[in-house]
Amino acid sequence: MDDEAPADPVSWVLECITTRQNISPRRLVAPGPDDDQVNLMFRAAAAAPDHGEIRPWRFVLVPPDKRALLADVFAQALIERDAEATPEQIDKARDKAFRAPFLALAIARLGPCEPDIDPLERMVSMGAAIQNFVLYAHSLGFGSGLTSGQALRSLPLRQLFQMSDGEQAVCCINVGTVAKRKPTRLRPDVASFVSTL
Amino acid sequence: MDDEAPADPVSWVLECITTRQNISPRRLVAPGPDDDQVNLMFRAAAAAPDHGEIRPWRFVLVPPDKRALLADVFAQALIERDAEATPEQIDKARDKAFRAPFLALAIARLGPCEPDIDPLERMVSMGAAIQNFVLYAHSLGFGSGLTSGQALRSLPLRQLFQMSDGEQAVCCINVGTVAKRKPTRLRPDVASFVSTL
Repeated sequence: MDDEAPADPVSWVLECITTRQNISPRRLVAPGPDDDQVNLMFRAAAAAPDHGEIRPWRFVLVPPDKRALLADVFAQALIERDAEATPEQIDKARDKAFRAPFLALAIARLGPCEPDIDPLERMVSMGAAIQNFVLYAHSLGFGSGLTSGQALRSLPLRQLFQMSDGEQAVCCINVGTVAKRKPTRLRPDVASFVSTL
Repeated sequence: MDDEAPADPVSWVLECITTRQNISPRRLVAPGPDDDQVNLMFRAAAAAPDHGEIRPWRFVLVPPDKRALLADVFAQALIERDAEATPEQIDKARDKAFRAPFLALAIARLGPCEPDIDPLERMVSMGAAIQNFVLYAHSLGFGSGLTSGQALRSLPLRQLFQMSDGEQAVCCINVGTVAKRKPTRLRPDVASFVSTL
């Protein structure tokens, strides 16, 4: 966020929420967050509403020395769905694993659970946890971007992240220093998505 | 939130995120947020990541003079799934529509869309929008609670809120002044939901 903070904390929270942008991992460079900052981001995630008990999600960090494993998975997943993928396309798929200094996979747990909470509601908890994470990253001055793609549903990825039945990879969370900011995006008018009974 | 704000904005954002609690609508009393505050809460919601374009959700306010319609729906939905519901149970179902001075229904749009975004990812956007909303409510000093139940999937509710195919009621968002605070909940240790590849 900008260094010039609004004078009062309430405005600051709104400013933090409304100025966060999705940044493409291509534009997220070193330095990334340090271990203490990462820990606080996950503490923020842990404060998501989670139906009191169940915490229907988990995260897996992919540190720099393991990015090649993720790159292999991205390449394998591409080849599996397109046997005619060109070497350039495969390289491009691999590259995606090496962007942004911080990368974690968000995994939702949507299988049978006790108490039995509707998977839709569990996804609200997942979305809230991710939002808390990226908001706090933004307040620290980092950029973040959520990425996904068909590889997240592939068997090689499920195996690499030791996902059990009922678990579902939701997105990668990428965090780093923003190399180049883009103009602030216009957000939809409140009237376009709120009505009154 | 407490009046004693941390000195720096970054700490304040973390404080806001980690001190928010789910408050039962039974403990949410008047005064609720005024129109300007509600508008800002929805502006916060609008800043959720939404895949650039699609904004896969909408909200419907249920003002005080329309709560009886929602109460009828709750009663009908109960009777439909349990023909032997007692008058006490029906009254209890109806009562739920009259709590918290502010009540809105969050509706996700999960049907076919262009570009075709996986419904799971759309639910991340929905969860992020709800989280932005309740975080800003919390920073303003209001309590909030998310509620759901089988009535949200009932036909009478779908009809009352004019939901189209592909839309799904996700939860009610209740906001008001907290009548009685509960002790801060312990949140899961980061180590319990984060691992490293």
